[in-house]
Amino acid sequence: MERPRHQSMAKNTYMRWRLPLVCLLWEVAMIVLFGVFVRFSPEADAHWEEEKREMNLTSDIENDFYFRYPSFQDVHVMIFVGFGFLMTFLKRYGFGAVGFNFLLAAFGIQWALLMQGWFHSFKNGKILIGVENLINADFCVGSVCVAFGAILGKTSPIQLLVMTLFQVTLFAVNEYILLNLLHVKDAGGSMTIHTFGAYFGLTVTRILYRPNLEQSKDKQGSVYHSDLFAMIGTLYLWMYWPSFNSAISEHGDAQHRAAINTYCSLAACVLTTVAFSSMLQKKGKLDMVHIQNATLAGGVAVGTSAEMMLTPYGSLIVGFVCGIVSTVGYVYLTPFLESRLHIQDTCGIHNLHAMPGLIGGIVGAITAAAATEDVYGKEGFIKAFDFTGEYQTRTPSIQGGFQAAGIVVSLLMAFGGGALVGAILKLPMWGDAAAENCFEDDVYWEVPEDEESDVYHMHNPDKPTSP
Amino acid sequence: MERPRHQSMAKNTYMRWRLPLVCLLWEVAMIVLFGVFVRFSPEADAHWEEEKREMNLTSDIENDFYFRYPSFQDVHVMIFVGFGFLMTFLKRYGFGAVGFNFLLAAFGIQWALLMQGWFHSFKNGKILIGVENLINADFCVGSVCVAFGAILGKTSPIQLLVMTLFQVTLFAVNEYILLNLLHVKDAGGSMTIHTFGAYFGLTVTRILYRPNLEQSKDKQGSVYHSDLFAMIGTLYLWMYWPSFNSAISEHGDAQHRAAINTYCSLAACVLTTVAFSSMLQKKGKLDMVHIQNATLAGGVAVGTSAEMMLTPYGSLIVGFVCGIVSTVGYVYLTPFLESRLHIQDTCGIHNLHAMPGLIGGIVGAITAAAATEDVYGKEGFIKAFDFTGEYQTRTPSIQGGFQAAGIVVSLLMAFGGGALVGAILKLPMWGDAAAENCFEDDVYWEVPEDEESDVYHMHNPDKPTSP
Amino acid sequence: MERPRHQSMAKNTYMRWRLPLVCLLWEVAMIVLFGVFVRFSPEADAHWEEEKREMNLTSDIENDFYFRYPSFQDVHVMIFVGFGFLMTFLKRYGFGAVGFNFLLAAFGIQWALLMQGWFHSFKNGKILIGVENLINADFCVGSVCVAFGAILGKTSPIQLLVMTLFQVTLFAVNEYILLNLLHVKDAGGSMTIHTFGAYFGLTVTRILYRPNLEQSKDKQGSVYHSDLFAMIGTLYLWMYWPSFNSAISEHGDAQHRAAINTYCSLAACVLTTVAFSSMLQKKGKLDMVHIQNATLAGGVAVGTSAEMMLTPYGSLIVGFVCGIVSTVGYVYLTPFLESRLHIQDTCGIHNLHAMPGLIGGIVGAITAAAATEDVYGKEGFIKAFDFTGEYQTRTPSIQGGFQAAGIVVSLLMAFGGGALVGAILKLPMWGDAAAENCFEDDVYWEVPEDEESDVYHMHNPDKPTSP
Repeated sequence: MERPRHQSMAKNTYMRWRLPLVCLLWEVAMIVLFGVFVRFSPEADAHWEEEKREMNLTSDIENDFYFRYPSFQDVHVMIFVGFGFLMTFLKRYGFGAVGFNFLLAAFGIQWALLMQGWFHSFKNGKILIGVENLINADFCVGSVCVAFGAILGKTSPIQLLVMTLFQVTLFAVNEYILLNLLHVKDAGGSMTIHTFGAYFGLTVTRILYRPNLEQSKDKQGSVYHSDLFAMIGTLYLWMYWPSFNSAISEHGDAQHRAAINTYCSLAACVLTTVAFSSMLQKKGKLDMVHIQNATLAGGVAVGTSAEMMLTPYGSLIVGFVCGIVSTVGYVYLTPFLESRLHIQDTCGIHNLHAMPGLIGGIVGAITAAAATEDVYGKEGFIKAFDFTGEYQTRTPSIQGGFQAAGIVVSLLMAFGGGALVGAILKLPMWGDAAAENCFEDDVYWEVPEDEESDVYHMHNPDKPTSP
Repeated sequence: MERPRHQSMAKNTYMRWRLPLVCLLWEVAMIVLFGVFVRFSPEADAHWEEEKREMNLTSDIENDFYFRYPSFQDVHVMIFVGFGFLMTFLKRYGFGAVGFNFLLAAFGIQWALLMQGWFHSFKNGKILIGVENLINADFCVGSVCVAFGAILGKTSPIQLLVMTLFQVTLFAVNEYILLNLLHVKDAGGSMTIHTFGAYFGLTVTRILYRPNLEQSKDKQGSVYHSDLFAMIGTLYLWMYWPSFNSAISEHGDAQHRAAINTYCSLAACVLTTVAFSSMLQKKGKLDMVHIQNATLAGGVAVGTSAEMMLTPYGSLIVGFVCGIVSTVGYVYLTPFLESRLHIQDTCGIHNLHAMPGLIGGIVGAITAAAATEDVYGKEGFIKAFDFTGEYQTRTPSIQGGFQAAGIVVSLLMAFGGGALVGAILKLPMWGDAAAENCFEDDVYWEVPEDEESDVYHMHNPDKPTSP
Repeated sequence: MERPRHQSMAKNTYMRWRLPLVCLLWEVAMIVLFGVFVRFSPEADAHWEEEKREMNLTSDIENDFYFRYPSFQDVHVMIFVGFGFLMTFLKRYGFGAVGFNFLLAAFGIQWALLMQGWFHSFKNGKILIGVENLINADFCVGSVCVAFGAILGKTSPIQLLVMTLFQVTLFAVNEYILLNLLHVKDAGGSMTIHTFGAYFGLTVTRILYRPNLEQSKDKQGSVYHSDLFAMIGTLYLWMYWPSFNSAISEHGDAQHRAAINTYCSLAACVLTTVAFSSMLQKKGKLDMVHIQNATLAGGVAVGTSAEMMLTPYGSLIVGFVCGIVSTVGYVYLTPFLESRLHIQDTCGIHNLHAMPGLIGGIVGAITAAAATEDVYGKEGFIKAFDFTGEYQTRTPSIQGGFQAAGIVVSLLMAFGGGALVGAILKLPMWGDAAAENCFEDDVYWEVPEDEESDVYHMHNPDKPTSP
């Protein structure tokens, strides 16, 4: 009862031994590495009572768990439901969108706990993890989900796992350079997550360029209900983005402020997205692609500056601009990238993450450079930019320069890393599908017969209905 | 490949210049007004370290962010996913339901921050916003979402934006009268959000009465999957309603109590809804419309009293009654309102918000009037009703009277405001659709070809299948 | 326009008087019992100010509400959206899945508040409830949702309400034996919720065995979109399981640790599920049934031990094993149970809850038996296992023995209780459907005409298209 499928290019998409092998080997590796390295942070360890006494804490509520766990859960929803469902817009790739996103993220968070742990939470030979590590692991995987958007529908699950392995590694290195060597602020990850993730993914998809992709053009669109499923992803990303940008900010005012700035930026972004979606269409109708994606650009673009004194109106301005940039990108830039630069960007991550991520880095640099003790208060100023120890002589304008350097480093890491990983993924053993089978769940999934298919079958045009 | 559509009444629904203009102008206005007026509250400002010292706070956990942010996020989900998806039950209006709700809410929260800020958070010429303002803005927009339910499918996005502008303004005025002048308690908004929002929306839809609406009757129903999408909205509203009713209550016992009361009321409401849904149907089958809506009436109806000592069994009784009232309303009242009073109420907000909102106001007045120092404790009594300063001589029975006055004021504001706004929306320039095109996404949205449509096309009845 | 339906066995599924009667009677009983017994706990009562003074609390943030409410909301989502949508995978039983789950859970939480209250929160003749009681009630209902999975599609709503009444009662007794008499730890409910709930449900479905169920075989599968709806349930269960397992742990490190362990176990579980799903299928394709269910087994299996010092790598190992066990179960065990043991397990709860629940109990017993003061610290050791009062002489190995006894007791309660309740549900008056009408919403719900149905109608094979 399966619909006939052209197997002309006869790619071997048989996963039976390769996929299990990769999954099992990697999970065993995780267990071994966790066994050697990973332990609980003092706040999650049963010795906490002693820790509390040592730190003069009078209440369990001072445990970082209560400061960050609600935000962690929101971020968690963004990674698994947000990104997963955002990508279900394709008519026949819902299982792949939500299922492969689930797979790569579940692997990625484990590897990220290790990689980020070695760089940031390593003490006496052990990685000590607490709720902040979980958030950071989700963040790291977020950059992989972004890159996944560019190659959605064109890669095998093994390729995605390979990409995740490399991208998480590179993410951790880039993050270390930015946060520790350059002493850059990037709490919501405009640079480390979005700029890096998006340009990485775009480079990968450029290298994996498929000249015959128009063979599966009929499957690159959405159907009515798949667009509604995608809106679940959109809304959860939109609603929880204030938690994303504030999740790892300093306790107190910084978390509070980051949430408010993000909320404002996102609200403004919706209005300019709607405006330009209608304006750029001859019939003036709204396009679901824009509403699903460009409305989120405002969250990306305040990722660096949300915890700074960007102010609510500053956030509105950033959101205003990004809704426009992103929507215009979908209308003009995506087709251009595909036809001229051979960058096939399934979800349009260039418009949602790359450009807004760059804007976010720049806005962050400017906001940092413009900081004054007057605006932040003497203590607030030092706390906001962590101008202590070896950095106590840094001035705002120098900080702005370093922030800008962070953008450049992220771009270089993305292009270099993406080229490397793209080359690896191009090897012929990973089981990706032929061009005519792209954007089709049937290649890697047991797909149930649809009610629609039943109808197809009942009225099979090959079978004459009247003899 | 587009299905033929009668354009007999030839309404101009072309949005290309009008919608962008409204969106951009209003967003620019927001930026200017935010620039002039809006700043961070002390708890979100970088001067927080100094503030903390002044207020003798020993820990960052005392920042209001940690008391209210989780509730804020739940409320946020209710407004965008809850209301948005609840309205996707229509077979061909899912984009409009979730998309226009997104648009109006994103604009509404900005305008609400300003309007409510001028009334409640204005200090030295600036509106100082923190997490509580975000919650209140969401609340305010909640009343617009309620009103949207009455006119769902019959209005253009511009009309919705115009309505939002006016309704938010009137909401803020009404709220000021109730909370500040009458000193009324209404933490969950039975009066300010539901009674006001619902009667406002019903008045608007009455004035926009469409005599020929039966022309789009085939689109006023649901399909199987659209009913499941709507259940996403229902469940998120139902689950998070305890957060809604407790979000802005006093710290400590009041928030705790409000959540418990709401939880109880909602649980009871489900059982009587199911009972009456089955009982009022000849075949005894359950109706999804009731399950999707009437199960929520219990949350509406304890909006005023949830933070008071309503007690768990009191909450059960309120939920019990409201499940019945609401379900009976769907079966008998909605058709009556349409045929006799010309009130076309797409989502039945009269049953879900108007009547339960009134009941909620009355229950609140009774609960307040019945309060005693014995039940609340001496301090608890004063704290619960804020009987301090000029109100320290107020007695429970007087408070009950003022609560009742709050209902009347909300009704008057709703009728008056709804009439005014309805008249404005009736002007012929807003681009609403002709009667036969109501409840149809295709008017304002690029709608993808459905798999179903493909089938339609394959078996086009105009094209004979056998020659 | 309704499709013809064989009513050969002519079961009376008419609910009109029976269902309303049960719902109303039971809700009235709840109101009376709540009126007699249920009051607010001190932390939710208006006397809280005095309580605070007595307990020397300096801040409202010490109210248990702020420690547990975010976790409560996550658990709430798991029960209503998680379980509800997980079961929507059937092509024509989405209303029943999400609607009946809603109904039974809304009743169950009320009855659980009473039953658990009498056992655990009874003071001076009153049950004093706070946020922890709400979580426990949700937990208790969770075991009913598990059992519902076994009989999904084959029972009437009345049967479900009857089952809920009995199962909640037995749950509370079993929980009392384990937690109070055996002094067993089971914060995430591997034994009390999953083992008990699953074997209870399997016993019930065994007794309700339907020999002719293959008559509705065409409806036992999924369609494309129903599988996506089910993934909403899966992901919310998966994401929020760390909150589930940590929700009622001790404040501080125990909650923190439980969340981390669960997070790790779940992540590992996804990879082995994917591996074995592909490996056990001739074509090597992934099966949505496995992804939807077996990925969650890791959460079940650390339910007892998550709050202990299981360590992150220990959690990975548990998750690793359970993904395999669960997936293998779906492929080999479920068909075996049906054909040989006449256990018809619609959702495969044997694989998702029964086996992982048992594993969870065993892992808990081992982890407890292996506990040392060295690993936990002197204070942490006593706190973790509550070795105070009459239990201060208990050693880890004895605790391990009691934990094991807890598994046995849970199994015995499940088999005994399930047999009893199964026998009651077999009585012929509850209105269950004939075998050929199972897995079909149309029996108990008003089902809208589908777009697909329209097509069926248009091309009705009974009506010749060419004369």
